[in-house]
Parts: sequence; structure tokens; C-alpha cells
Amino acid sequence: MLVIMKLNASSGSIDRVQDEIVKLGYTPKPIFGEARTVVGVLGLKPLRGKQHLESLPEVADVLEISTPYKLASREWHPKETIVNVGGTSIGGDMVSIIAGPCSIESYEQLKTVGEAVKADGGHFLRGGAFKPRTSPYAFQGMGVEGLKILKQVGEEVGLPTVTEVTDTENLDITAQHTDMLQIGTRNMQNFTLIKAAARTQKPIFLKRGMSATVKETILAAEYILNEGNENLVLCERGIRTYVDHTRNTLDVSAIPAFQRLTHLPVVVDPSHAAGKRSKVLPLSLAGIAAGAQGVMVEVHPNPEVALSDGPQQLVPADFKELVDRIRLVAEAVGKTVN
Amino acid sequence: MLVIMKLNASSGSIDRVQDEIVKLGYTPKPIFGEARTVVGVLGLKPLRGKQHLESLPEVADVLEISTPYKLASREWHPKETIVNVGGTSIGGDMVSIIAGPCSIESYEQLKTVGEAVKADGGHFLRGGAFKPRTSPYAFQGMGVEGLKILKQVGEEVGLPTVTEVTDTENLDITAQHTDMLQIGTRNMQNFTLIKAAARTQKPIFLKRGMSATVKETILAAEYILNEGNENLVLCERGIRTYVDHTRNTLDVSAIPAFQRLTHLPVVVDPSHAAGKRSKVLPLSLAGIAAGAQGVMVEVHPNPEVALSDGPQQLVPADFKELVDRIRLVAEAVGKTVN
Amino acid sequence: MLVIMKLNASSGSIDRVQDEIVKLGYTPKPIFGEARTVVGVLGLKPLRGKQHLESLPEVADVLEISTPYKLASREWHPKETIVNVGGTSIGGDMVSIIAGPCSIESYEQLKTVGEAVKADGGHFLRGGAFKPRTSPYAFQGMGVEGLKILKQVGEEVGLPTVTEVTDTENLDITAQHTDMLQIGTRNMQNFTLIKAAARTQKPIFLKRGMSATVKETILAAEYILNEGNENLVLCERGIRTYVDHTRNTLDVSAIPAFQRLTHLPVVVDPSHAAGKRSKVLPLSLAGIAAGAQGVMVEVHPNPEVALSDGPQQLVPADFKELVDRIRLVAEAVGKTVN
Amino acid sequence: MLVIMKLNASSGSIDRVQDEIVKLGYTPKPIFGEARTVVGVLGLKPLRGKQHLESLPEVADVLEISTPYKLASREWHPKETIVNVGGTSIGGDMVSIIAGPCSIESYEQLKTVGEAVKADGGHFLRGGAFKPRTSPYAFQGMGVEGLKILKQVGEEVGLPTVTEVTDTENLDITAQHTDMLQIGTRNMQNFTLIKAAARTQKPIFLKRGMSATVKETILAAEYILNEGNENLVLCERGIRTYVDHTRNTLDVSAIPAFQRLTHLPVVVDPSHAAGKRSKVLPLSLAGIAAGAQGVMVEVHPNPEVALSDGPQQLVPADFKELVDRIRLVAEAVGKTVN
Repeated sequence: MLVIMKLNASSGSIDRVQDEIVKLGYTPKPIFGEARTVVGVLGLKPLRGKQHLESLPEVADVLEISTPYKLASREWHPKETIVNVGGTSIGGDMVSIIAGPCSIESYEQLKTVGEAVKADGGHFLRGGAFKPRTSPYAFQGMGVEGLKILKQVGEEVGLPTVTEVTDTENLDITAQHTDMLQIGTRNMQNFTLIKAAARTQKPIFLKRGMSATVKETILAAEYILNEGNENLVLCERGIRTYVDHTRNTLDVSAIPAFQRLTHLPVVVDPSHAAGKRSKVLPLSLAGIAAGAQGVMVEVHPNPEVALSDGPQQLVPADFKELVDRIRLVAEAVGKTVN
Repeated sequence: MLVIMKLNASSGSIDRVQDEIVKLGYTPKPIFGEARTVVGVLGLKPLRGKQHLESLPEVADVLEISTPYKLASREWHPKETIVNVGGTSIGGDMVSIIAGPCSIESYEQLKTVGEAVKADGGHFLRGGAFKPRTSPYAFQGMGVEGLKILKQVGEEVGLPTVTEVTDTENLDITAQHTDMLQIGTRNMQNFTLIKAAARTQKPIFLKRGMSATVKETILAAEYILNEGNENLVLCERGIRTYVDHTRNTLDVSAIPAFQRLTHLPVVVDPSHAAGKRSKVLPLSLAGIAAGAQGVMVEVHPNPEVALSDGPQQLVPADFKELVDRIRLVAEAVGKTVN
Repeated sequence: MLVIMKLNASSGSIDRVQDEIVKLGYTPKPIFGEARTVVGVLGLKPLRGKQHLESLPEVADVLEISTPYKLASREWHPKETIVNVGGTSIGGDMVSIIAGPCSIESYEQLKTVGEAVKADGGHFLRGGAFKPRTSPYAFQGMGVEGLKILKQVGEEVGLPTVTEVTDTENLDITAQHTDMLQIGTRNMQNFTLIKAAARTQKPIFLKRGMSATVKETILAAEYILNEGNENLVLCERGIRTYVDHTRNTLDVSAIPAFQRLTHLPVVVDPSHAAGKRSKVLPLSLAGIAAGAQGVMVEVHPNPEVALSDGPQQLVPADFKELVDRIRLVAEAVGKTVN
Repeated sequence: MLVIMKLNASSGSIDRVQDEIVKLGYTPKPIFGEARTVVGVLGLKPLRGKQHLESLPEVADVLEISTPYKLASREWHPKETIVNVGGTSIGGDMVSIIAGPCSIESYEQLKTVGEAVKADGGHFLRGGAFKPRTSPYAFQGMGVEGLKILKQVGEEVGLPTVTEVTDTENLDITAQHTDMLQIGTRNMQNFTLIKAAARTQKPIFLKRGMSATVKETILAAEYILNEGNENLVLCERGIRTYVDHTRNTLDVSAIPAFQRLTHLPVVVDPSHAAGKRSKVLPLSLAGIAAGAQGVMVEVHPNPEVALSDGPQQLVPADFKELVDRIRLVAEAVGKTVN
């Protein structure tokens, strides 16, 4: 940390700042400029006391120069993490494809999609059983029955599964029925939930909050790593901006940012940002071109009657084309779709 | 709803849209323009099928013209709600003052603040026992011990209490120790939690999500009202914008918007938007001038050593000045601080 | 400035940074931490070379700790500026009211409004002659004929006038017909225009850009002050956010921010943020409660037929009520409406 | 347009709305729902009167269902535009590469870059002579001398040129020295300038405003097309969001949006969104993968001493790699780099 004093701060105030830094267990190192003094705060302990220092007299600002996370940081852990989910890997130079319906609606629906995903080259089957919905009048998911269908279809078609866990009450039952637990955008900072999910030791698929910064997302990842669970995938899924031509704005620049700052695999989810089927393809390809190590897309056998997110779900034929085109772009950027 | 067809859509497509509207249980009413047809969707049932209609051939757009909420709507419930919390009211022409520390840190700390809040004209005592924190290394709250202190101090100083509930696991114990349950900004769309909190029948203090729209906030309120709990207060606490001179941007225009669209009391929380003590006063007064029926502020006997949010907490002397000035502005806009 | 080196940067890189700081004419002062080195950049010259230092090997970041503006800065110029416009002052403890139609449409229209503004306690008459419009098919203003009407009506009713200048071509003629030149939100960073406007030595009314930061706004002000024109008023008029219930989000927190960082008067313009007449009153009062030294509002004798911005313009009777209520709130915060 | 009446609006109000629609020259078509009436506004004239209708009694809302632009609209002009700039085309299935320094600093600098751009496969040479800068103390460009260098180097290396025009005063001289006029992000709604630039009949390179919506950008294009100039290229260059890990957020979804809504070529400019050299490559590739028909990047022989935007400029060796990789991704999405 660096404590920036106000212009012409008194020597008394500067002394006070140094005393407080010592009390916090750090070493102060002042730089006396011609008009302004800056006091460096030296020490390797996790950062504490920023707010205290900010509140001292004649302090103009306190800047953090270290990252507030360690376990997620590539500076501290240069080796890239490859996540293993039920025998299938995500990360490195591979591009993984995670696909399935927004909501699980029936065995037949999921089986149809699951077979298409498997046949067309997908690696993971997704499907929502507990659905967080903006309106209380919208379809809220099949619940445990949906989980059972997911487990059964995953085994039948031979794909590891991913599903969202929405609260601690349904965590155990969800963990028993899936290979990877998804934390949704609305729950990225539901710290009780993410810690409990991490403790199941299931692989975690962590979606960026829809107005989270890159740093806040990495701190949420830090919560998970701090529970001893290192099977963690980050997902960029679009952020809230003033823009009105899409539901959310896919922040492709977050992909190289996460990869530079952390050692974790990064997947792109274009469906929620696109809002419409026709944009899922260009946004998927953009994500891969920007370096994403996977794509999560929504596929439904008949989106016109889907109980949620119909307009953004692909039909199986679209999905096949998507995989083919992802393969071409992945190769163009030196990656492989297995 | 209105279904907007594409320019020069075929009569087959227009017929198809009308058939589907009938299947959904509504009545279609087309308007044939010179270049474009619009089909009205008539019926009083809760809206369903928007996504389905959007996915039909040659449909350009589907517009909702009714609000997606009913129980929260002032159009349907013109009478203003006054919320009763432990014998003290919020709403109408009163301005309520809710104050206390960000985190409960000890009996002595809360007692000091509670006495000051009571003496200086505050109406409710707040204090956090379970703290959702961005970093896993930050102070996470005293937990149940903090709840006990809150209950005791509330009774001793004679103020009803408010505290945040962060998950369903600590909901019951929290409900037993406080007069009003706060749903924090990160949990506004934690639907499992808000429904469970509503079912306790305790009054609910619902903070707007930090990137929630007014409509999404009202839909979260609808979840609570839909559980039969009408003791509900909305709180504007600042939103995430590109702005970097404050932590969040207090959206004062949301106050009259909530009051026009719903029948619920609206309180302003300037502390998190301000980020710094010096801005708490102007933002509080701005909120009251815009019509807020209450202010929630953070007060700490010694913010310099606070375990969370030190820089934005007021000392008791600041609080007294704040109440005095709120009183003046409240009177200027025709309201009363009791 | 402070140059933050990467973790365990080599001594060669640190030396290189110091050499480059010397070449830029500053004095380097390194602080060697246990894992990371920071090099302070000392000297009182205007800041230069930030980008150069950022591009050096093993530099993690370069932080500015001084403000990039001097003439606008309250740190350097503590005395508050009172701006004089045609004999009428803006600033200090006064609240000034600037009112008039969005667009000047005829002599009769402006005369009616001007008389109402004068009679009801307004201090300045505004009206647009050159209108920047999003669509090429919208009314673009009366041009020079409008300017003549403004000048005539201003003199007849005895109010100094304000009008927007939209380009350097109409600058001279505009300056000849008005007492204060308004720079609109779209032109805040039209540097050619703001410098030329400043050089007329007319008082300048500078609106914050609709996505400008506080710092960028102050830098635009710095351009004007740098031309030797100190008759400058800042205006907060709402910013672009994800919010969809108003046209723009009035950032009331910018008012105390501008007042703390600069010595310039700050006026609030609620009309564009509100978008609707019913929100103009609460947002005006919120701005005054937050400390604004004036309000600019749109008034039209018959908004239903206005050629621009009809829905947000007040009728004269609303305006009278607004002035009365502003007076009450201004007094509640220790200010005066003359 | 559609006029949405309030719940249970009186028949008098509905009649009044219909009368006003007739007065505006359109035909009203009401749909009487059970609780709410909607009045369609029929007619093919450019839309007028929206604000007027909004201001009538018991009107809840007025919705536009036609696009407010015609000349730019693909609905009206399905054929894709190929822009010709000095004999070189932009648009269709080609990917064009526009490269050069942020600012022209000397003949030698531009010649070095120009030769590299030509040798490595670039199609256009860019360079700024008039620089709009946030701070008055930053380098403001070489002005006319820079234009002369640009013209000379363009001719010597055999590349058409692009440069930004910042005001009407330097428009003529700029138009005389370059093949395409760039309108920068800060000037997208400087309507005086864009109309005047359009009238030179030079090809126009229009950058999206940094907080402009897709619709506002297309309306700015409409201004240019409305002057009879159809040589127009749109450019996505990043928008302002709450995100702090990049300078701006590249909105890749705008690329397919512009292509669906208009018939104009779309180019991506990743440099300003990236802010840092290391992100220019992934964002360029993301833009191409999303369908962009060109890339504009900044190249400098020695970015460490650049007078503006050093950190985001590529060195010639980076540029060569960028072109090679763009070529691969372009082919993967069915496009060609000539």
C-alpha cells in the first residue's frame, strides 16, 4: 500500500501515519516530494488497515499496489490449471464445449439434446433444474426431478454434466447428481453458497456477476480456492451496460484479463449476452478468438416451446454448425477442439 | 403484449401469430398498417408466452405494455402502504431514521451507538452480524453473538432493530433476534432467500441490487408480497456506473419512480454510494428532498478502528447534525421527522 | 507519479526506470519493498511521461497522485469563484434559477416564458437557437433568428440570457446575442469549440458530458481557464447508465465532488435526466439539497406543442411552484434564492 | 408508433388521442383491450409527434415500432455497401487493415510505419494530425504539417490514407490531404461537423461515440447519408462501462447488430478499448471472428517515446504477427484479407 498525504501535510500528520503503519505490523517508508509526501507500507502479510489509514488526518488517498488475492493469482502461481470434470479436462490449449437446454423440461427433451450434443462434438451436458427467475410468475425449474433426469441422461449419452446450484438447501442433492456445480451470475457474491459449494470438492463453474469487476470475480474465486477446492473454471457471460441492443454486453476483454491475472481456465457463455439466437454464433467465435478455453451454449430441441430463454437457445442443427465453426476458429488461434 | 411483425410480413406468418396467441389463451387483435402489421394480445391473465411469440417467423419484436407485477403495483393498489416495525411506522409523510454501525463489533460499541441514535432522534437501530464481504480475508461479522447483542441493545435503548440476513441457514436465528430483516444488495435476486425471509412474516427491508433496474427491484418485491408479507420497505442504495468518484452512484430518481409505480415506502441509504463520510450528508439530504421516507446511515463511535466500512461511517456528533439537517429539509418538502 | 514495478523486478529494470525519470526532468525516489519496488517521481512540473514509463520493462503500473489540473483545482485555488453574468452573480451561498424553453420557437413563445420566469423569481433566461439533435429529421432550431429573439426578450424582461453554442461557425454571432455561452453535453470534449468559446471572454456554462467522469469534466474546465476565462460555471445534467426508468441518471454526488475539487459554482439541470415533467421537481430539490448553487430548468407555455423535449418542459404554473419549493429547500440547507 | 393508454383511460382521452393523430397526418387504429387501450399510428411519413402524443392526458407511453432511420436501414436498402477509398475497397467478404501511428510525429516516424504497414499487408495508412486530448497539457498534434506528411508518405508507400478531422475549421485542409475522413468518438454527435464532412464527398470513417447506443450511431450515419454521401464505414471502438480492467469495453455484439440493421461496412478498432498492447491482438481477432470487415490498429516504430497513446501502439513486428493471425481467423469465418 501507499499512503498519499495531502499537499503540504504537516510533519505531525506524517509522523502519525508512520506510527499507525508500525502498529499495523508493517514498515513505513516515506518519500518526501517538494509539495507532497507519500508513505510506502512494506510487508508481506495480507493487506489490512487500508480504511484505517484513509481515515487519518491529512491523508489524501491510500492506494493498493498488491493484488488482494493470492491463491488465484498467476503472479504467485504461474502454472496454468487444468480442471478435471468426471474424467474430461478443461483448460490449456483445448476448447471445451458445454451445451444443453436452459431448463430441463422432461426426460425426452434432455435425451434428445444430450444425444445431439454428444454426436456433434460437445464435451459436457448442461441443464437447469433450479432456475432463478426475475419474475415470481415465471417457470422456476423441475427441481430434484430435473436433477435425476440430468444424471440419467448424462450417463446414458456419456457426457459429464453441469447444473446450477442456487442455494445451500439444494446443494447436497445437486452435488450428488452432477459432475460440476455452476454458480450463476446472481450468486457470484453469495458467499455462503460459494463456500459451501467449494467444500463439496466438486468442480465449480463460476459465472462472473453481471456487474462484477474482474477483481471482484477473482476474489469470489479466491473464496473457493481458500476452501481447498482447486477445480475451478471462470466464465464470462456478459455485463450490464447502458447498451440496449443486447441483453448484456459480452466483455471479451475479460477473457485475456482473467488469463493474465489468474491461472484458471476461462469459458465464454454467449447465450445470455446475445439474447437472440442469431448473435450466439458471432459471440461464441469472438470469445474463442479472444482466447477462451470453452463455450457454454444453450440448445433446445424446440426453442419455440421452451419454458425459459427460448429466443436464445439453438436448435441441434445450429449447434452442429456452431461446433464446426468453433473448430475452425479454435485452430486459427492455435487451440484444439477434441 | 403487442407483436410487431417484420416489414411486409406474409399473411401466413400473421395468421400463425394469431393462432399461437389463441393457443396461449389470449385474444389477437391485428392492426394492418401500410408496411407493417402489429398484433395486439388481449387478456387479463398474467403474461406468458412472450418468448414463444418472439421466436415465430417474421416477428420483429414483442413488446410488453402491462407491468409484469401486480401486487406491488400502484396502478392496481393505489393506497399507500405504511409498514409497522415493532410498533414504529415507516411510510406516508414521515421520515424515518435508521442508524447504527456497519458491523456489530461488541456490546460496548453497539450500546454507545444505540444510545446516541436514540438520544439524537433516530427511530431504528441497525447493525450487521453476518457480513457479505468481497474478499475472503475481510472481517465476516460476529454472527449469532452479534445478533444477541443487537437484540439486547435494541431493548435497552428502546429502538426496533434491523439486521441483514445473508442466507437461509441463518434466517431463523436472525428472525428471532430482530424486528426487521434486511435483504442486502447482493441478495436482491437470491430468490430462495427472499421467499424464505418473506415467510417469516417479519417486516422486510429490501435493498435494490447494485445493478438492478427499477422493474427488477419491483419484481423482487413482488416475490415477497406473493408470499403474503406486505410489511415491505424498498431501499435505494446506489448503483454501479462508469463513475469513479464515488463507490456507487446514488440514483435519486429511483425514489419518485418507486413511489409512482408501487405503493411501498422508500428509504435512501447514502453510505454505500458515498463511500466517504463527507458525502453522506449531501446525499442524505438529496434523498429526502427527492421524496424518500427514510434514511439509513452508518454510525460508529470510532470509525478509525471500525472492522468494516470505516471511511463512510459517521461519528455520533456528525449523526446529530445529520438528523437536525434532515429535519429541516424534510419540513421543506412537507414531511415530518417524529 | 509513482512507478510500481512487477514482483521481484530485476535491478536492471529498476535502474532503467530511474534513468528515464531523470531524462524526463524529474527526480526518482525508489522504495525497495520485500517483494516489490516502487519508484516515486518527484518534481513540480506538469505531469508528462506516464505512458512512456508504463511501457518500460517490468513496470506493473504507473499511478498519478497529483491532479492533472491546476487552474481548476481547489487545492491550488482555495477561494471560491463567484461568476458574474451581465451584472447577476452565480455561486457562493446563492441559488440561481435559469429557466426558459428547450428551443426558441417564436417571439411570442419566448416573451411569454420570459415574463413568467422574471415574475416568478428566475434569474436567467435560457433558450436554444441551434439544437444538436440525435435525428437529422428532428427540428434543428431557429438559428440566428432565434438568437435575435433571445437578445430582445432578455432585454425586455430584464434577465441575462444563456444559450448553447454548437460550433465555431456560429460562435461569434451567438456571443454577440447572449450573456453566457452554454457548452452542451455532446460538446464538452469538443476542444476546438470550448477553447474558442473561452476566448470570447463571455461567461461559460459547461455541461458535463453524458459519460464524462468528474475528472474529465474538470479537465474540460481547465481548457477554458487556461484561455484566461475564469467566468465558468459547471453543470451536472445526468449521466448514461444501464438504468431505463429515466433518460439519464442525475449524479447528485458529482455536486459535492465538483465543489470539493474545484473552486467553481455548480448548477444542476434536472430536465434531461428526468425526461418527464413529474420528475423535474424532485430532482431539482435533490440537487439543491446536495449543495447545487443553481438550477437550470425548461419552461414552455404549452409543452404539448413544443418542437423539442416537450414531455420534460414545465408550464409556467409548475415553474412558480418549483421556485417556491426550491426556496424552502435552499433555506433548509443554508442558501438563499435572491 | 403505438400509443399505450393508461389502465381504464376515459373514452374522452382516447378520442382526443385519435384526433391528435389525425392532425399529425396519420391514421389512428385503436385496439380496445379489457383493461387497456392501445392506439396504432399508421402512415409512412417520417415519424413526428411522439413527444406531443406522450404529453396528452391518460397516455401511459408511446412506443416507436419503426426505425427512426431510413437511408441507413437494411430493411429499406438490403444491398450491402462496398466503400471505395482511393481505389481500395472496404466491405463485403474482405477484411481491411488500417494501421499507423496514433499521432504523426515526423516524416521519418510515419515513413517507417507506412513502409511496415505496406510490407506486412496493411491496406490503409492512418495517422492523427489534429488530436483531441482530455488534458490541455497533452500533445495536441502537428496540425497541417502532419497532414502534409501523411499525404506524402501515403503516396510514397502506395497506401490510401485516413485521418481524423476535429472541427469545421480544419475540415477543408484535411480533406485536401487525405483519402478518408475519420470522425472520432467525441465528435460522433457533433452534427455540424459530420454534415460538413459528408458534404466534402470524401469517404467517411465514423467511430461510435463512447457512450452512444447502436441506434444513435446509426442516426449519426443517417445524417451523413442524408447529405448524399454513401461512402461511409462504421467503427466499433469500445464503450464506457463500469469496468476498470480496460479503458473501454469493446462491444463486439455491436458488429453483427450494425450489419443486421444497416447495409454499411463495419470495422473494429481494438486499440482504445485495449489500452494495452497485449490486448490488441485478442480483441482484433475477436472483432474479426464476430464479423468485422476490417481492423484499425495503432502502430509506432518506438511506442516507448510516442507522444500519445504509447502503451497501446504495436511495434512493426507485432503488427506483422497481427496481420498473419487476422488472416487465419478471417479465413476461419469465410472472409479474405487481400
